[in-house]
Amino acid sequence: MISVAVVDAETPGNVGTIARSMKNFGLADLLLVDPPALDPDGEAYGFAGQAREDILPGAQTVTFDHLVENYHTVACTAVPNEDDANHVRYPAKTPAELADSLRDVESDTCVVFGRERVGLTNDELARLDEICSIPASSDYPVLNLGQAATIVLYELRELTVERDQHPDTLHTRADEQAIEGLHEEFAGFVEAVGHPAEKRPKARRMFRRLLGRAQPTGREATTLRGLLRKARHRLNHEE
Amino acid sequence: MISVAVVDAETPGNVGTIARSMKNFGLADLLLVDPPALDPDGEAYGFAGQAREDILPGAQTVTFDHLVENYHTVACTAVPNEDDANHVRYPAKTPAELADSLRDVESDTCVVFGRERVGLTNDELARLDEICSIPASSDYPVLNLGQAATIVLYELRELTVERDQHPDTLHTRADEQAIEGLHEEFAGFVEAVGHPAEKRPKARRMFRRLLGRAQPTGREATTLRGLLRKARHRLNHEE
Repeated sequence: MISVAVVDAETPGNVGTIARSMKNFGLADLLLVDPPALDPDGEAYGFAGQAREDILPGAQTVTFDHLVENYHTVACTAVPNEDDANHVRYPAKTPAELADSLRDVESDTCVVFGRERVGLTNDELARLDEICSIPASSDYPVLNLGQAATIVLYELRELTVERDQHPDTLHTRADEQAIEGLHEEFAGFVEAVGHPAEKRPKARRMFRRLLGRAQPTGREATTLRGLLRKARHRLNHEE
Repeated sequence: MISVAVVDAETPGNVGTIARSMKNFGLADLLLVDPPALDPDGEAYGFAGQAREDILPGAQTVTFDHLVENYHTVACTAVPNEDDANHVRYPAKTPAELADSLRDVESDTCVVFGRERVGLTNDELARLDEICSIPASSDYPVLNLGQAATIVLYELRELTVERDQHPDTLHTRADEQAIEGLHEEFAGFVEAVGHPAEKRPKARRMFRRLLGRAQPTGREATTLRGLLRKARHRLNHEE
């Protein structure tokens, strides 16, 4: 199981935001070290969305020692080290690499996020097992706490989300017959519209390249074919 | 260039959060349709981090028509359609697929996010060019606006971040000689410690598997080898 810990957060809103992202990405176990007060009428609950019903009220307040003693801990920081002489912030993984490395390991893991302004201290980092850092602009790599947690949980989704909201395929291409039928209809249309005979092959190639990239769905191919057929009939009838 | 548009946001804080994430991931051009008032002493500027200095004050208020007329538009929604009969929300891409598809296209693209509670309306979606949807838990796929924008911008980072804050490599493995030297030292240590001769090969295999997965850095290999050498010398001296 993957748990999330937030150490010494200042802002209740960030705790609520993290709880919501946890629910969005299939996590449930929230651990808080030295948390701010979480007033049920305050920002934490206001920002938690549906996580106000379960994750936030179920959050446990624990000590930092509890994390170290009971979990494989992953420390998130915006600032990894440049070289290997310092073991506090080197080596590090990106969130995608973290997801890869945890995929086949059975054990309780806790992803640990630090306070808003300064993150986790070096003393805290030194006690945690692994370092994770989100690649961001060198001009301004420091994300808001809630945003950083959201990205890490998003990258871990394959390990934590049983079923996402998407249909089995977000995009199904029309079968090849339907697409070739559309190309035939387009050829008839180009002719009916009076396009010069010597230019027709080029127009057909243009259309083939366009559809080749657009990967039309079955419904798109059918509708377009119907419209072109209708146009051809009308055009031929008007002659 | 990739721009970001937020349509009819209710909460200034979300606009600030999005501005900050834009700066984190190398974007600069923020377009607002029907925005809330952005008070320089209010939440938008409070949440924007360093983006309060450039992206937020530089944000332009525009019409929805302006987006449609001037950009290749990508509409973000938590709820894509199940099948291809409805062209409003089908087909859709994930943020990672969106990044892949935009990689080699030169043109102005605008990623469009909707209002907090209901997102973009069907009428708005129908006018935009592509649909993007973040895979999340089917139990609760609706992300907070700021979080959703952060994930999409994170996925687009390869197109927008010129240089990230990370060192060239987040993890350099010690060269093979250093690692084999460590294995030799470990073998001497196992002997010096008095481990039974028939069990030593198995202990060495254990250590080889452990280091094989851990991919030690040069510094880790050197330090560990030094400690094992010191132990061996002391152990042999004490005999």
